[in-house]
Amino acid sequence: MPRYKMIIEYDGTDFCGWQKQKHGTSVQEELEKALSIFTHEKTEVYGSGRTDAGVHAYGQVAHFDLSEEINVFSARASFNALVRPHAIGVLDIQQVPDDFHARFSAKERTYIYKILNRRTPAILDKNHVWHVGLPLDVSSMQKAALLLLGKHDFSTFRDSECQAKSPIKTLNELTITKRGDYIFFLVKARSFLHHQVRNMVGSLVEVGLNRWSIDDFKSAFEACDRTKGGPTAPAEGLYFQKVDY
Amino acid sequence: MPRYKMIIEYDGTDFCGWQKQKHGTSVQEELEKALSIFTHEKTEVYGSGRTDAGVHAYGQVAHFDLSEEINVFSARASFNALVRPHAIGVLDIQQVPDDFHARFSAKERTYIYKILNRRTPAILDKNHVWHVGLPLDVSSMQKAALLLLGKHDFSTFRDSECQAKSPIKTLNELTITKRGDYIFFLVKARSFLHHQVRNMVGSLVEVGLNRWSIDDFKSAFEACDRTKGGPTAPAEGLYFQKVDY
Repeated sequence: MPRYKMIIEYDGTDFCGWQKQKHGTSVQEELEKALSIFTHEKTEVYGSGRTDAGVHAYGQVAHFDLSEEINVFSARASFNALVRPHAIGVLDIQQVPDDFHARFSAKERTYIYKILNRRTPAILDKNHVWHVGLPLDVSSMQKAALLLLGKHDFSTFRDSECQAKSPIKTLNELTITKRGDYIFFLVKARSFLHHQVRNMVGSLVEVGLNRWSIDDFKSAFEACDRTKGGPTAPAEGLYFQKVDY
Repeated sequence: MPRYKMIIEYDGTDFCGWQKQKHGTSVQEELEKALSIFTHEKTEVYGSGRTDAGVHAYGQVAHFDLSEEINVFSARASFNALVRPHAIGVLDIQQVPDDFHARFSAKERTYIYKILNRRTPAILDKNHVWHVGLPLDVSSMQKAALLLLGKHDFSTFRDSECQAKSPIKTLNELTITKRGDYIFFLVKARSFLHHQVRNMVGSLVEVGLNRWSIDDFKSAFEACDRTKGGPTAPAEGLYFQKVDY
């Protein structure tokens, strides 16, 4: 059974998320439908991680098995023709060894969170950024972000529905960059708790708005208690950028 | 009569263009409607230049006159509330001298044209880039672009409906930059002929696809004849970036 890895871009706006659901359109289901049309096989497409409704991807990774080898270039073209008009694009397909697993082989996942920080609402970036109308103090957020680096109990930023066994995760990078009216959060870890990126960004924004001091942020983080954390940043600013294996 | 200058962002996808038309929704008309609601005056909003259906703006400039002074900050908020749900955002409003004219006072206009150059169609950038699926040779396009700099007869890139008196224009800048799968054209001039940017980009892409040599491009340009030019690049990749006064 040849195994294939693919890289997928999607606009999360009109999806219920990556994962198949009873109700709503998911990226996974649309990819499986397309695959079954051109391969005549019913095959599961395993993603490297779920994304929530409204969350976007530049480089989600998934794998699937087929009974026979396919031409990866024509498979990509078939996917891209068959998923239309859904906002999904297959960027690349490669055959991989049998032991490759999109989720379990992942060494590092990278997310980007985008904030548009100006008075005027998002226009050209509607549904693709979090619009924060009040000015954010980037250097305070950068200082607070340093506290999150490394191995910690991230319970303060963990959704109550999180299914991970442990709240201990290792954050490899959290870089905050301002470019014009945009603020970008680049976040890297082997894996994340449910809503971890959005919850971290939501709490950092409390610091950026000067509602929280850096000490307040530190206390909230060290409390290891979600009720002490800030609000969850909206889905529309979050992008699953890539997975390294 | 106080005069006001405003800077406007819009997503051109769902508009018939900047200019009021008998049929279709225009940016100008929506701004005039909003203005009449919060000022109780019927006032014309003069843009620095028209944009076609589908063309976007990061920084279109317009002016309008009112019988009384207004608070520019609350005026901006009123505009942004009243134009909803149309994809228009007023970024800034300032009072200007009576002799300021959005169109006639302009010293330089800047456009950006964006191409997504990869096999997979545009997903997150749908309607916001020209998707060119075949690889483009950027350095050939850069060489050809140098021929356009300075004062020339741009008839080859002039739409048949162009109302300008003369086809002679001075191109101050045309810089082509590749970043990842994106190719950006930065184009600056005091003023442009109708469709000039899109027609120049369309012909440069003929060079980038190796359908035209640089000599072919030169001959087409020197012919001063639209029928010798390449196709018009689609509206969706074009952004009116700013106007300098």
